[in-house]
Amino acid sequence: MIVRMGLALLAAFAGGAVLGKLLLPVLYRLKFGQNIYELAPEAHKKKQGTPIMGGLVIALAGFAAALLFCKYDAQGVSLLLAFFILAFGNLLIGFADDMTKIRRGKNGGLSPKQKLAVQTVLALLFSIWCSRQSAVGTAIEIPFLHAQLDLGLLYVPLMTFVIVGTTNSANLLDGLDGLLSSVSMVDFITLGVLCVLAGKENLGIGCAALCGGCMAFLLYNAYPARMFMGDTGSMFIGGAVSAAAVLLRQPLLLILIAFWMMMSSVSDLIQFAYFRATHGKRIFRMAPIHHHFELGGMHEAKIVMMYLVTTLALCVLALLGAA
Amino acid sequence: MIVRMGLALLAAFAGGAVLGKLLLPVLYRLKFGQNIYELAPEAHKKKQGTPIMGGLVIALAGFAAALLFCKYDAQGVSLLLAFFILAFGNLLIGFADDMTKIRRGKNGGLSPKQKLAVQTVLALLFSIWCSRQSAVGTAIEIPFLHAQLDLGLLYVPLMTFVIVGTTNSANLLDGLDGLLSSVSMVDFITLGVLCVLAGKENLGIGCAALCGGCMAFLLYNAYPARMFMGDTGSMFIGGAVSAAAVLLRQPLLLILIAFWMMMSSVSDLIQFAYFRATHGKRIFRMAPIHHHFELGGMHEAKIVMMYLVTTLALCVLALLGAA
Repeated sequence: MIVRMGLALLAAFAGGAVLGKLLLPVLYRLKFGQNIYELAPEAHKKKQGTPIMGGLVIALAGFAAALLFCKYDAQGVSLLLAFFILAFGNLLIGFADDMTKIRRGKNGGLSPKQKLAVQTVLALLFSIWCSRQSAVGTAIEIPFLHAQLDLGLLYVPLMTFVIVGTTNSANLLDGLDGLLSSVSMVDFITLGVLCVLAGKENLGIGCAALCGGCMAFLLYNAYPARMFMGDTGSMFIGGAVSAAAVLLRQPLLLILIAFWMMMSSVSDLIQFAYFRATHGKRIFRMAPIHHHFELGGMHEAKIVMMYLVTTLALCVLALLGAA
Repeated sequence: MIVRMGLALLAAFAGGAVLGKLLLPVLYRLKFGQNIYELAPEAHKKKQGTPIMGGLVIALAGFAAALLFCKYDAQGVSLLLAFFILAFGNLLIGFADDMTKIRRGKNGGLSPKQKLAVQTVLALLFSIWCSRQSAVGTAIEIPFLHAQLDLGLLYVPLMTFVIVGTTNSANLLDGLDGLLSSVSMVDFITLGVLCVLAGKENLGIGCAALCGGCMAFLLYNAYPARMFMGDTGSMFIGGAVSAAAVLLRQPLLLILIAFWMMMSSVSDLIQFAYFRATHGKRIFRMAPIHHHFELGGMHEAKIVMMYLVTTLALCVLALLGAA
């Protein structure tokens, strides 16, 4: 199992590195450049024109490597397919969003309501499917307590909320060069190890492959970025991370594994609520919270490394919770 | 075993983060600032005055956490102590070097011959000790082939060469903000997993603790660095990495795990040989090779991320070789 996972990771890394090299000039030629949100920190203006949709590197290299090294037994393949279907479904929503942005020449995209509606339907179908699988079911693990909790009828709405929440949180976290890609590199390898512990081989191969994809993408996306993943990439990652956690019956571990994704949403909500309550005061210099650190004088590259090592620590804690 | 390793990593990370916070003002007050080598790339001039000896964070936090979580059985403790004795022995050489630099106010330090002599004696004693331990012995593993090779009388000189070579290579690799610390964070976690595979529990706890120490140090050392590890840190890391590989009977895996350390030495040697042979031509813009990339226009933070992800890929390959 570990051998196949290792090979999938390496294949995705090598494939992704080549794919990135090929995709970069294409994206530039198609003028798939990012239009930087006009309210973003001043320093981000120089990022105008960096091509988006680089997330395709992660998704395609990871998917190809997973197919190459997975085991073709019925149950394992169905989990792996469900995992990729949710991830690619969200990728398509992100892709539509990216295309709209490029066409209109504004950082606008799909309307938030449209996006949310499609995401919810997708997550709902996925959750219903999971609830009916013997390998998943409606019971979830309680980390650290070695206990299980059967959510029964609450399973589908709660998992739908977790998936939609995580996906949009990943989207919010994608705001600094290499930030989401390095955090999710650590996330995917952790989810892969959790799959080893749970004996879910093919899903583990999928997670390892996506870790390799993130590693390859980082060659182009690390500060200073030559390529962004776009909503294409961030929605794919959010979908994949939440799908893996749900399929592992470990949605509660997302609090640790997807900590910075969640903090992006939470800081956004706190900022908004505080702003409303105080009629115009801000608690953070800017939300999501990585912009708060940035405007406090921390260099982009340092914030990324801080997020990376703290994510690694939280992921080790998550593994202790599951072991 | 995995639980203790996880706890040691987390304790070292938390302890190191606090220690770094405490040490930073002390090092500034003592004016333990780095005098940047006058031949270093121009951009490094701004690093003048950043305090060195931050490597103490990794060494002390890692050592304390390892002592806290190791199992007190005779054989496991002796391996762990041998590991830390070699690492701290090299740390002392690096420390002497750092002190000399600070006192003289020049980037000079111990004479290369003095340093090499002490290192060699230390590595020699360590290798002789290893050769006489039943848990180590003179046979080494041949990765990927599931075979062993008994080096017999060649064991001690070869291991001495490997240890001295790796230690000085680590020292050479320590040339960009966060470079050696992020590479060795990946190295130590890999060595920890190798210990799990080999059932060497206490050594695994030591490696995991040093991984946590590197993670904590990165909070201060990532670009733009507020603290350097100094020779204190790089010699400690080089000693620890090579000691772990030798104790695991896996010195050959250092070709993968310590790839960029070795490339630093190899690029230095090639540069020197080419310079001599061509009477003054250079094959790299500058050696070690990370300066070649830097002078080629790659940002420091991007080189670090490239080294980090390629090291991770090579480490996964190393694990496949040992599995």
